[in-house]
Amino acid sequence: IVGLCKQVQDVAYRGYQMGKSDPRKIVFSAKMGLALMLISLLIFLKEPIKELSQHFVWAILTVVVVFEFSIGATLSKGLNRGIGTLSAGGLALAMAELSHLAGAWEEAVIILSIFSVGFCATYAKLYPSMKPYEYGFRVFLLTYCFIMVSGYRTGEFNHTAISRFLLIALGAGVGLAVNILIYPIWAGEDLHALVAKNFTRVANSLEGCVNEYLNCTEYERIPSKILTYQASDDPLYSGYRAAVESTSQEDALMGFAIWEPPHGPYKSFNYPWKNYVKVSGALRHCAFTVMALHGCILSEIQAPAERRQVFHHELKRVGAEGAKVLLELGNKVKRMEKLGPVDILYEVHEAAEELQNKVDRKSYLLVNAESWEIGNREKELGEPQDLLTFDDDENKVLEYKSRSEAVLDLRSMTIPKSWDRHALSMDVKPTIHPTISSDDVFKKQISWPARNSFTADTLPQVEESKTYESASALSLATFTSLLIEFVARLQNLADSFEELSEKANFKEPIELPIAT
Amino acid sequence: IVGLCKQVQDVAYRGYQMGKSDPRKIVFSAKMGLALMLISLLIFLKEPIKELSQHFVWAILTVVVVFEFSIGATLSKGLNRGIGTLSAGGLALAMAELSHLAGAWEEAVIILSIFSVGFCATYAKLYPSMKPYEYGFRVFLLTYCFIMVSGYRTGEFNHTAISRFLLIALGAGVGLAVNILIYPIWAGEDLHALVAKNFTRVANSLEGCVNEYLNCTEYERIPSKILTYQASDDPLYSGYRAAVESTSQEDALMGFAIWEPPHGPYKSFNYPWKNYVKVSGALRHCAFTVMALHGCILSEIQAPAERRQVFHHELKRVGAEGAKVLLELGNKVKRMEKLGPVDILYEVHEAAEELQNKVDRKSYLLVNAESWEIGNREKELGEPQDLLTFDDDENKVLEYKSRSEAVLDLRSMTIPKSWDRHALSMDVKPTIHPTISSDDVFKKQISWPARNSFTADTLPQVEESKTYESASALSLATFTSLLIEFVARLQNLADSFEELSEKANFKEPIELPIAT
Repeated sequence: IVGLCKQVQDVAYRGYQMGKSDPRKIVFSAKMGLALMLISLLIFLKEPIKELSQHFVWAILTVVVVFEFSIGATLSKGLNRGIGTLSAGGLALAMAELSHLAGAWEEAVIILSIFSVGFCATYAKLYPSMKPYEYGFRVFLLTYCFIMVSGYRTGEFNHTAISRFLLIALGAGVGLAVNILIYPIWAGEDLHALVAKNFTRVANSLEGCVNEYLNCTEYERIPSKILTYQASDDPLYSGYRAAVESTSQEDALMGFAIWEPPHGPYKSFNYPWKNYVKVSGALRHCAFTVMALHGCILSEIQAPAERRQVFHHELKRVGAEGAKVLLELGNKVKRMEKLGPVDILYEVHEAAEELQNKVDRKSYLLVNAESWEIGNREKELGEPQDLLTFDDDENKVLEYKSRSEAVLDLRSMTIPKSWDRHALSMDVKPTIHPTISSDDVFKKQISWPARNSFTADTLPQVEESKTYESASALSLATFTSLLIEFVARLQNLADSFEELSEKANFKEPIELPIAT
Repeated sequence: IVGLCKQVQDVAYRGYQMGKSDPRKIVFSAKMGLALMLISLLIFLKEPIKELSQHFVWAILTVVVVFEFSIGATLSKGLNRGIGTLSAGGLALAMAELSHLAGAWEEAVIILSIFSVGFCATYAKLYPSMKPYEYGFRVFLLTYCFIMVSGYRTGEFNHTAISRFLLIALGAGVGLAVNILIYPIWAGEDLHALVAKNFTRVANSLEGCVNEYLNCTEYERIPSKILTYQASDDPLYSGYRAAVESTSQEDALMGFAIWEPPHGPYKSFNYPWKNYVKVSGALRHCAFTVMALHGCILSEIQAPAERRQVFHHELKRVGAEGAKVLLELGNKVKRMEKLGPVDILYEVHEAAEELQNKVDRKSYLLVNAESWEIGNREKELGEPQDLLTFDDDENKVLEYKSRSEAVLDLRSMTIPKSWDRHALSMDVKPTIHPTISSDDVFKKQISWPARNSFTADTLPQVEESKTYESASALSLATFTSLLIEFVARLQNLADSFEELSEKANFKEPIELPIAT
């Protein structure tokens, strides 16, 4: 008994928590109770009209079915129900007339018509673009069968159809009135909030990823939930995952929002809900790079901490600025403000440029130079050892020339051409043939030790980490270039936000003292 | 009229196409028609039992509502309906007894009880973990209200409740019998097929991505649908997108599949449907790297074609082998075979190793060496120009020594340490101070030309492409390292497949003549 008591307490507590976190749920439940109460009262009062209230069940059914959480859903279901009932009623009445003509075969005609209507309606509702009207088809079928059967039994097709329709209208009327007039819950508002929230989520994930990467946080053991893309508590992961996974939720909300009349801040007809989804899609496109950044942290191939520190300041700045842009855009979506005259991407582009310059200068840190096939290249280039016999001055002149040529090449933006010259200039150094071969062989031996034990091994992560160690330096390059790619994608996000702000007629931003 | 004729033709054609691509839809529609026909017939036949057939509408309603596409969905809805009806019936009868005690206040008690039950049931169904039982709560509410109101009107609570329940049972019986006995459509089979298909989709995307990358296919103008993550026709994109987006579909199918009894090849109770979803999740984890690879193609930052050609063979091989592994795993899922003694990842690891070695040897191609701050580093290293005054032989010895030290360092796996020595060995060459500064300044001027025109510019893509040109070489490094990361993630996929094959008791693979 104590256990039961405890359970009840637990359930009550969880119910309380839910109510506290989203009070709209309590309101909605109360509204539902109210609507049911009203319809019951109406039925009680209407007792005198005995004939009509024989079918009172339809009124209750309609209220229960039509009463959805958001106004949009309620309206779309109500409309589906209305159209389904009306068209089925019309068809049924026509069919009834026809079946009368059949005389003795009346029953057979009715049964056959039920089969064929059932077949057609079901087949039509399976067509993909008919998905939103699925409920309408269901109601259509139900109404048709009901009227045919009950009409046949009583011989009063018209009466059945009309009284049924009246009661459905009554139920729908009560349901809609209660749902819309008392504390309405709008799908559009939910969509708006969801999109704005996704910005925050991605921003947090981004900043978290960059920081963790710089702190060289490693997963002791990667949660298998991440590896199989299931929901997990990891804050970095859940941030972008929520943003990526909200597609279906957004589509559903948009499907409802377009049914809603203009309300609150969404003042125009044909409000561009589609553009909210589009902005969210562009954000998702950014979130995928955050996901790839997180992949660098999850990866078994890890860049050494010392090298990460070299780019510490620049990476951190890009991460922070990127997150700032996302948060600001998210805030603007929330407050429905336009972009304003200041280029929102200025700072982050500045930061990315800084990172880019640093990478340009320090890119030797991003590769492993040990195994460059210097010997091979030297052969291609035609005995550059000969250069070593030049005296130093001449050598310098040669270098200088190639360097300046490179600058010329740079001006015409053909990096690949300029490369060869520099490869040459770099290769001009004492040869080290003797070690290369042994180095290479050694490398081969150590780099894939896990080969034979793959099937039997119990800790593939650990083995793999050795396997790919030689790629570790490249991992930093990947992280950096993904971060830059992220910045590039922000432009697209800003564009789609601008489109939204134009179409939805966002207000001009309030002039704030710019504190940058 | 011709237009209408054309439209009808069009609709008929599309309907025919749908039937051809998935004949199950036709079968299902016919089953629905059949079930409705049967229930109507039964009602006609039962005419004598007038009292019972007064509520015949419940039988029709139940058939229409319970008849879902897959067996699992039908069973779960039927059960929801059954439990909802029974518990509501019980509660309503108890409440009716209580309200009798209230005497004159009976009506008020009934109305109040409707409100409170409506409130509680609605609130409970909003709790997230109650989602699958949403329909049950709806039925509960409906039944409760119906019995209370109709019982009050006629005073026959018991009779209403019982006849209603009998008719629902009749409807559910007919619906279930027709749906399960005639050509059943299993959600589990759908889930199985979906997971297997996702493997093919990702494999095609992967191979396509690698090929397009090597062919330097560029998007003239990236479809805005990709940038906002909407469905698009692009074959690379739609492949992985479908795999990534199928989460909700899989979850829904799994929710139904667990209701289905053992059938066909899924012979055990508690069949591990969850593991199918897990394998699909691991596949999705791989698909995200394919997505990132595609991102490299979409990116404005593009590596020059010549450098891609250097790694052409290796990249292509990894892509092809990776796709082969995916296809084979997908086939094994489809045919329900275990992995077999041959290591399925052997070939792709071999290919990745080859790529890795090539990268090791040629990694100078992955960075832009023009702007290495050679001058600065030389200062740090303490006037290495002095080295140039050594005679050549001595210099060679020095080089040789550092090289062998590096080999020692490699053995103890501390690449960062060994680096410094190599940085030194690379920097030992004639200095080129005079050009560096001008080079840097020049770079800065050209690399961000878009700065001032960001707000006004109409073609941000083009501008950006110049902005980030200097990162182009790194883009190849990113592509390569993402590809290697993909191979690393395959291990995890193979593991989760093995778990599935164990739990689901897949058959041993048929011995095929291995044609590798």
